[in-house]
Amino acid sequence: MQLHLSTWIEVEAYLKTSKGIVMPIGSTEQHGPNGLVGTDAICAEVIARGVGEATGALVGPNIPVGMAVHHMEFPGSMTLKPSTLIAVIRDYVGSLAEHGFERFFFINGHGGNIPSIRAAFYEVYAEQRALRGRDAPDLRCTLVNWWENPEIGRLSREFYQGKEGSHATPSEVSLTQFAHPEAIKRVAMEPEQAPAGGFHDARDFRRRYPDGRIGSAPGLASPEHGQRLFDAAVSAIATQYRAFVAEA
Amino acid sequence: MQLHLSTWIEVEAYLKTSKGIVMPIGSTEQHGPNGLVGTDAICAEVIARGVGEATGALVGPNIPVGMAVHHMEFPGSMTLKPSTLIAVIRDYVGSLAEHGFERFFFINGHGGNIPSIRAAFYEVYAEQRALRGRDAPDLRCTLVNWWENPEIGRLSREFYQGKEGSHATPSEVSLTQFAHPEAIKRVAMEPEQAPAGGFHDARDFRRRYPDGRIGSAPGLASPEHGQRLFDAAVSAIATQYRAFVAEA
Amino acid sequence: MQLHLSTWIEVEAYLKTSKGIVMPIGSTEQHGPNGLVGTDAICAEVIARGVGEATGALVGPNIPVGMAVHHMEFPGSMTLKPSTLIAVIRDYVGSLAEHGFERFFFINGHGGNIPSIRAAFYEVYAEQRALRGRDAPDLRCTLVNWWENPEIGRLSREFYQGKEGSHATPSEVSLTQFAHPEAIKRVAMEPEQAPAGGFHDARDFRRRYPDGRIGSAPGLASPEHGQRLFDAAVSAIATQYRAFVAEA
Amino acid sequence: MQLHLSTWIEVEAYLKTSKGIVMPIGSTEQHGPNGLVGTDAICAEVIARGVGEATGALVGPNIPVGMAVHHMEFPGSMTLKPSTLIAVIRDYVGSLAEHGFERFFFINGHGGNIPSIRAAFYEVYAEQRALRGRDAPDLRCTLVNWWENPEIGRLSREFYQGKEGSHATPSEVSLTQFAHPEAIKRVAMEPEQAPAGGFHDARDFRRRYPDGRIGSAPGLASPEHGQRLFDAAVSAIATQYRAFVAEA
Amino acid sequence: MQLHLSTWIEVEAYLKTSKGIVMPIGSTEQHGPNGLVGTDAICAEVIARGVGEATGALVGPNIPVGMAVHHMEFPGSMTLKPSTLIAVIRDYVGSLAEHGFERFFFINGHGGNIPSIRAAFYEVYAEQRALRGRDAPDLRCTLVNWWENPEIGRLSREFYQGKEGSHATPSEVSLTQFAHPEAIKRVAMEPEQAPAGGFHDARDFRRRYPDGRIGSAPGLASPEHGQRLFDAAVSAIATQYRAFVAEA
Amino acid sequence: MQLHLSTWIEVEAYLKTSKGIVMPIGSTEQHGPNGLVGTDAICAEVIARGVGEATGALVGPNIPVGMAVHHMEFPGSMTLKPSTLIAVIRDYVGSLAEHGFERFFFINGHGGNIPSIRAAFYEVYAEQRALRGRDAPDLRCTLVNWWENPEIGRLSREFYQGKEGSHATPSEVSLTQFAHPEAIKRVAMEPEQAPAGGFHDARDFRRRYPDGRIGSAPGLASPEHGQRLFDAAVSAIATQYRAFVAEA
Repeated sequence: MQLHLSTWIEVEAYLKTSKGIVMPIGSTEQHGPNGLVGTDAICAEVIARGVGEATGALVGPNIPVGMAVHHMEFPGSMTLKPSTLIAVIRDYVGSLAEHGFERFFFINGHGGNIPSIRAAFYEVYAEQRALRGRDAPDLRCTLVNWWENPEIGRLSREFYQGKEGSHATPSEVSLTQFAHPEAIKRVAMEPEQAPAGGFHDARDFRRRYPDGRIGSAPGLASPEHGQRLFDAAVSAIATQYRAFVAEA
Repeated sequence: MQLHLSTWIEVEAYLKTSKGIVMPIGSTEQHGPNGLVGTDAICAEVIARGVGEATGALVGPNIPVGMAVHHMEFPGSMTLKPSTLIAVIRDYVGSLAEHGFERFFFINGHGGNIPSIRAAFYEVYAEQRALRGRDAPDLRCTLVNWWENPEIGRLSREFYQGKEGSHATPSEVSLTQFAHPEAIKRVAMEPEQAPAGGFHDARDFRRRYPDGRIGSAPGLASPEHGQRLFDAAVSAIATQYRAFVAEA
Repeated sequence: MQLHLSTWIEVEAYLKTSKGIVMPIGSTEQHGPNGLVGTDAICAEVIARGVGEATGALVGPNIPVGMAVHHMEFPGSMTLKPSTLIAVIRDYVGSLAEHGFERFFFINGHGGNIPSIRAAFYEVYAEQRALRGRDAPDLRCTLVNWWENPEIGRLSREFYQGKEGSHATPSEVSLTQFAHPEAIKRVAMEPEQAPAGGFHDARDFRRRYPDGRIGSAPGLASPEHGQRLFDAAVSAIATQYRAFVAEA
Repeated sequence: MQLHLSTWIEVEAYLKTSKGIVMPIGSTEQHGPNGLVGTDAICAEVIARGVGEATGALVGPNIPVGMAVHHMEFPGSMTLKPSTLIAVIRDYVGSLAEHGFERFFFINGHGGNIPSIRAAFYEVYAEQRALRGRDAPDLRCTLVNWWENPEIGRLSREFYQGKEGSHATPSEVSLTQFAHPEAIKRVAMEPEQAPAGGFHDARDFRRRYPDGRIGSAPGLASPEHGQRLFDAAVSAIATQYRAFVAEA
Repeated sequence: MQLHLSTWIEVEAYLKTSKGIVMPIGSTEQHGPNGLVGTDAICAEVIARGVGEATGALVGPNIPVGMAVHHMEFPGSMTLKPSTLIAVIRDYVGSLAEHGFERFFFINGHGGNIPSIRAAFYEVYAEQRALRGRDAPDLRCTLVNWWENPEIGRLSREFYQGKEGSHATPSEVSLTQFAHPEAIKRVAMEPEQAPAGGFHDARDFRRRYPDGRIGSAPGLASPEHGQRLFDAAVSAIATQYRAFVAEA
Repeated sequence: MQLHLSTWIEVEAYLKTSKGIVMPIGSTEQHGPNGLVGTDAICAEVIARGVGEATGALVGPNIPVGMAVHHMEFPGSMTLKPSTLIAVIRDYVGSLAEHGFERFFFINGHGGNIPSIRAAFYEVYAEQRALRGRDAPDLRCTLVNWWENPEIGRLSREFYQGKEGSHATPSEVSLTQFAHPEAIKRVAMEPEQAPAGGFHDARDFRRRYPDGRIGSAPGLASPEHGQRLFDAAVSAIATQYRAFVAEA
């Protein structure tokens, strides 16, 4: 059940059955030669919808632009400052809490968002304490990165055998190819697998990884892989969601 | 051409031909008994994509949650504080300006966003002056409300004959029915046309308009109307976009 | 009754009779060759005082500097960033609300302020909801631009016959000549009527309108016109104020 | 020369002769039984204008509402949060610095403003360093409290002989009676001289000083005193201004 | 070499040899029955000083209060909001960058700080890009948690054999006993090892872990352990620091 | 009793006897050729601890970096923007107020902090009014500069006979030599006493006072002086603290 495709009356009814909501959060940033700029937003959104279907959870609107300062040397990348992203999450959660939502399950598509999301949760808790004191509602926020579960790990190893890498990975490219087959890009890449490593900031990122990939071979991606990754992620995360909302 | 479905290399190529970008901005708020909570976000997004296709313009990511404080008494409504929305727009425009974009054409789906969007444009201009002085790039931001053009006015009068109203209108509901036929809601409404008028704040809104509609008869909506409204809006706004990016 | 010329005991007495207050808001920015930098602040203030006298309303302190980023290429222009102006209005309204004021009637002298003022109203409403929830006082803020009423339109057409323009207009210059006859400037202007049109930002404004006027012939201004414009505006706006505070 | 009563062309000419500007800053707060709510704003403004006439300095727009949290238990008092007042001063100075002003001479009417004004000066300096580094213009801001000079001290002792007190003083009430003889209030006060002392916050202030005066006997005020205090303050502060703008 | 115990002339000399600086960051929060409220600040500071001595690195001032919203139900706990902590780190790094420091090595004493610190790094990078564009200095910030290295892991297992736990651990208590033997607390604890698990917010934390410990047996702590943990942490982290500043 | 060296249970017990807390606040900035960069932080901290011992007051964590924009031309100086420092103090006080502390006694080591600290107190009061209205706790914050009491004045005159100066003074250097005898610097200074005077901003400071001293002869400092200054300051300020917490 997507919030955007529901009426307020349907939401009112939903709230009588559950205080949980699934919140996708992505990013808008370069993903190498054949990865889409919207990769992280698309992955978070399709998996969130899948989890919504699997569990009956309401799925809130996406946060399509995240914290991607380190990608800003590549055209098309966009970023919120961490302080802006924190304010956005604070307002999202705060709005929904007014209606009685109390369990916020963020499905994240971008590693760079993690610190700001976690900081935002505590900004929310701090603000609730200030506003409501010990009468504050029992709000709980959690964060799940769609790729961090054993099922995805297993498929990645099976499909890519060490060529997953850490940015513009074949897994995420596959997922977007599954979600948007009309936007599959055929691009030759040299070398097949990009060099691995770390980086400091945006300029350093571009210097070290001139085509935007880190350690990955996204030429191995396919929509069929995407389908299987989608199924695995939805199954694993639906289980996590059910546990989260059932917690005492 | 959607930014989210493009690679950074495609964006780099696009920037050699144009400095313009289309930016949809919507809202997540109640739209009466048969209107979707995502109505404004959906309308902005589908029309932006249509304009992108008609003109070849790049279409940026949506801002799906806007300024909707006055809808907060209806479950499912979400809002950014005006100051947060201003920060978001500042970061969106600022990010894209780093890559050389200079013409920002916002297609808006929600009247309540207008002040914050316009204020944000000047926040951007003020910041650019502070940062870059008289060497600042020639950034230009403009705002178009999808429903404010003669073509849409004509169709609305033809289809709804004075029952358009001002919130949860049959035009916007039709557009979402065209965009999401899987989410058409059949709901009886009494009276057919809601009372018209103003309101003060969220509580006053709900008191005066208990089902969320203002002056409208959204039961008249149909996906066929939506198709024609979509075509008209895209055509009118594509012309406006072309003029905007061609301006000296 | 001006707040600045009252004692706190008089304000306490006033609050037993009314919860309304008139708030002037202007700008400090170039107004062409013979217009004063304080034009918008002066117009808002004199009309606010007139409305106060006509209705018995309390008149609060001016906000003399508004949002005028687009005038910053002309010496003497000043601006608050939109986010600062929003904070100022939030604090003005918030302070007065502590004493029991509930109806805030802003008389505005500058078009560029409108988005920030309207955004500020919702910032106030959002903050009140956060702080007080459904027990928040029933605060209502409204905005009236002094030149937007039929009486002023009629006089402008009678006096200037199409030479009103949109910035540094003979109407506003006349009003300031009426208010400050000691500061009437005699300046030759070529051409009599400035070119009309739009603009993008401060640099573009100055490039297109090198003497600061847009579409106007402020050489036609006179203090006698100013007197009649003042009377008309006060009369029209006093009626609007009475309706505003009488609203259920 | 008042900025509000000048044209931009006059300001442009002024800047060829001086980079200095006088900035009045007041407050809107209770001033006891016969003192005006606008006392501090009025005092700062009339003295600033006097200094402008005496020295030829340009006088900027007032900041009529200052930091008066501790007066908020008395109706009519208004306050900016310190952080808002800092932002306002930052924007005022920043705007004027764009035109080439470099010497900002604040004439202050309210002790409670002092910390925020001084903090704001350093906020400005810090921002200029961040934005412009060692190429930042040589901005200098200073603060003068109109009552802090030997001439005012001498007159106060002569007129009030130990009954000046520290809030709602006969000196400031006299100044406003001189500036606004139409708003002189005749109010009996018991005792003639209010108790002196400190206070903690707004509630404590009202508890200790129920009519709003601290240590003062403002019934002794007269417009004639006001004239002499005005002359003395203008003379003393004009000298300070001349020294300030002449400094190497 | 501690910044606080150096003169500016010594810092000037240091900068000719290194652009690196060690920055301790802690927290002020409950640490169970025998742990000090300052545990995390003390641990970060003593290890930072040790690393400074081992490597010759300059050691900056501590950030003694971090992000500890979840400990606020225990008296004495203090917290910065995440947004405040981000601003503090931004100002610390920004100040030092003015002098030419480019490598910022944060030694952290508190898990709850991690998101805000990491978000702050990107806030710094974003601000530097905005202010300086591609000419921004090559600032690099990194974060090391003192307990996350194999040497500490090994000692913890040797000393506490599975009773380390995750809050108010014997390791950190030992370290503070080594650093402040005058403040060793003798407190009986029941049970010896606290229950392990997660928590949601401050109220939930206190409900689940009424004495403040999570999974730990801090009664096992001793200053002798503290000495060995100190030596191990300094040795491991000094190596990390040397690698960090040597990186291309 | 230092908060950092106490357990939460000890703090809980303390709160049954007192609602007062001593808060040291310093700065990290150049202090001339033989003064430590940490001078102001060290002075505030050692005196605060002394006052804590003398009175039994709890002593909170230091704020080691203050507002020192004007020292930023000397390597090693650090500064918070005034707005950041205000936020820090707001969070410190706000945290402690959650536990029931109501009397906040700041011992300050740096003149440049004064405006921001005082502004912060009112930011706290304003926020408490907004959040809690007239039910807000009776929070009281006060500020004592360690050097502003007759005892210190007398010793300074006795020891330095007019060579105290106003920055990098022999008194403060003596205090740090007493506190950190291991960090006494032997540096020849020419002339013995630096020139006195004011300054505008950081560049002006360095231009006028190239070695960082203003009017002082810190070569006269000695740890023995430091001991006597420490004793005098602790004694004087302990008395002030006792009066502060005893106030009705």
